[in-house]
Amino acid sequence: MKIAEIAPPWFAVPPTGYGGIELVVALLADGLADRGHDVTLFASGGSQTRAKLVSPLLDPPDPALLGNPWFDAYHAVSSYRTIGHDFDVVHDHSGIAGSAIGALQRGNPPVVHTLHGPWTELTRRYYGLIHDDVHLVAISEAQRADNPDVNYAGVVHNGIHLDDYPFRAEKDDFLIYIGRANPDKGPTIAIEVARRAGLPLAMVVKKNEPFERAYWDEIVAPLLNDEVEVYEAISHEQKADLLSRARAMVFPIQWPEPFGLVMAEAMACGTPVVACPAGAAVELVENGVTGYLRDGVDDLVDAVASVGNCSPAACRERVEEHFSAEAMVTGYERLFAKVIDRR
Amino acid sequence: MKIAEIAPPWFAVPPTGYGGIELVVALLADGLADRGHDVTLFASGGSQTRAKLVSPLLDPPDPALLGNPWFDAYHAVSSYRTIGHDFDVVHDHSGIAGSAIGALQRGNPPVVHTLHGPWTELTRRYYGLIHDDVHLVAISEAQRADNPDVNYAGVVHNGIHLDDYPFRAEKDDFLIYIGRANPDKGPTIAIEVARRAGLPLAMVVKKNEPFERAYWDEIVAPLLNDEVEVYEAISHEQKADLLSRARAMVFPIQWPEPFGLVMAEAMACGTPVVACPAGAAVELVENGVTGYLRDGVDDLVDAVASVGNCSPAACRERVEEHFSAEAMVTGYERLFAKVIDRR
Repeated sequence: MKIAEIAPPWFAVPPTGYGGIELVVALLADGLADRGHDVTLFASGGSQTRAKLVSPLLDPPDPALLGNPWFDAYHAVSSYRTIGHDFDVVHDHSGIAGSAIGALQRGNPPVVHTLHGPWTELTRRYYGLIHDDVHLVAISEAQRADNPDVNYAGVVHNGIHLDDYPFRAEKDDFLIYIGRANPDKGPTIAIEVARRAGLPLAMVVKKNEPFERAYWDEIVAPLLNDEVEVYEAISHEQKADLLSRARAMVFPIQWPEPFGLVMAEAMACGTPVVACPAGAAVELVENGVTGYLRDGVDDLVDAVASVGNCSPAACRERVEEHFSAEAMVTGYERLFAKVIDRR
Repeated sequence: MKIAEIAPPWFAVPPTGYGGIELVVALLADGLADRGHDVTLFASGGSQTRAKLVSPLLDPPDPALLGNPWFDAYHAVSSYRTIGHDFDVVHDHSGIAGSAIGALQRGNPPVVHTLHGPWTELTRRYYGLIHDDVHLVAISEAQRADNPDVNYAGVVHNGIHLDDYPFRAEKDDFLIYIGRANPDKGPTIAIEVARRAGLPLAMVVKKNEPFERAYWDEIVAPLLNDEVEVYEAISHEQKADLLSRARAMVFPIQWPEPFGLVMAEAMACGTPVVACPAGAAVELVENGVTGYLRDGVDDLVDAVASVGNCSPAACRERVEEHFSAEAMVTGYERLFAKVIDRR
């Protein structure tokens, strides 16, 4: 298949730091190319890929301009103009302008658009307009269930590159939390759960945006104690080391997050996940096998006491089967073939 | 000609209050329809037009969401999907998504895109990408000259409906300023010029956005005196009455504004304009005939003393000839014919 993968323009692919969508797109472009497809990746300059690379923007925009619609439109127009009618399928992750142009391609070529964000009043209205013009893909059953009013071409879970996550069966006595400093992610609950479980907590946090900084300083920081170690902007190797040694990940998610890649990362390292049953957490974690799904601090503390019952090998296997780059590439390969066939 | 006019989605057309672009689009759709063209206007619900009306959004968005890219994309996708290939020409005023989709229409139908905003680093880059795919129209020679690096299909000045502006040759002893509370518009200079000219000043201001309010409260308000009367959110009739009675408009513009409709409104009422020579002011005002172009408070005060030399009739004639709805409709009619011919 001749495939165009359009990344967002904001970071090089793969990202060196923040950039979950870019990470997924990088694995997908490489994985599809490795399987012999003719793949062109449209991504900002500095990207590395085993696909052909076309960079509408020579450099990613200044991070202060993340989301700026002029860059969004520049990247999308340039990508689609290069694509023309000369591809079997376009896979668009790029943003609003990309989906708008894609919706007007009238199926020539067909456009597959992965929904990376949550459902809001505005996105429901917009995708309700274009759902017959582009092939929408949900990244979880939870995301799909949260909006039954649009048509989906399918669900393909995000995947990670397992080789980047060292498996470790023997655990040290601490818990790990990874997430933005935002009440949606429940960092204060994680601190309370660790304290009551009597275990140290490693917190890997992102708190560089104004709201995140304010929430951290005013709400989270006063709850810190000697048993909490905070990490910011650490390398992938440091993160993987912490993940593989932790007894469990605490993921007290407070909103219906459409995926949650860090749960897959933890399980890949053989580390069970104690999560609240919101959003895609119920799909990622197999309750009682690769972690626990519990609401409220009491039940989360109980679950932490039981994580010894979860087999590290079962955690790893769950990711291999459902949330690996290979599984994701296979999922999109089948979906593209179906879309092209139907044409 | 079968013409699609795409308005922005933010206000009904014509606007009842703020909305300069919507006012121009309203006159254009009506004017083209009156000349026998088959015109469809794509504008939010509640719009009034003598063209056919199609409203992708049943109501304009909440004003707090002005510029929101999801609405921008919804309106543009819906408009272009309805347009299909079934029009001779599309005239797009709608925003970023509209121009992005327009750029990918590959001339079927051709898309004319009027540049309503100023040149910035981001708009230069973006329009530099699409200038061969859409037919760009500048609203002044000044705007065109400010960016010689893109191709233009032409320049068409904005126009006003002259019947809405009462001509009055006898003037009262006061000056008028109309503009947002923003240093770009020079309200503090206007106050100083009026004070030194020994004339009262009527200020019609917009100051509802946070920056405008802060600038007004902190910088402008302390300069007010008994000779300054401030008006906010007045009716068109009140504004036209003030404009027609004023001895002159003071327009001490401090940035290269691409047009400046209030100068045309003043002259239509027979009121000369004393402006700084920036942006389109040098095209709107005929120096020494319909007002004066002067820099600095001293020279602006001198100019106010000389406005008696400017004939109210000459002011009105200048608008009739160059900045009337009729002149604008003729300008676009010719430009559309040229674009369709070339195809």
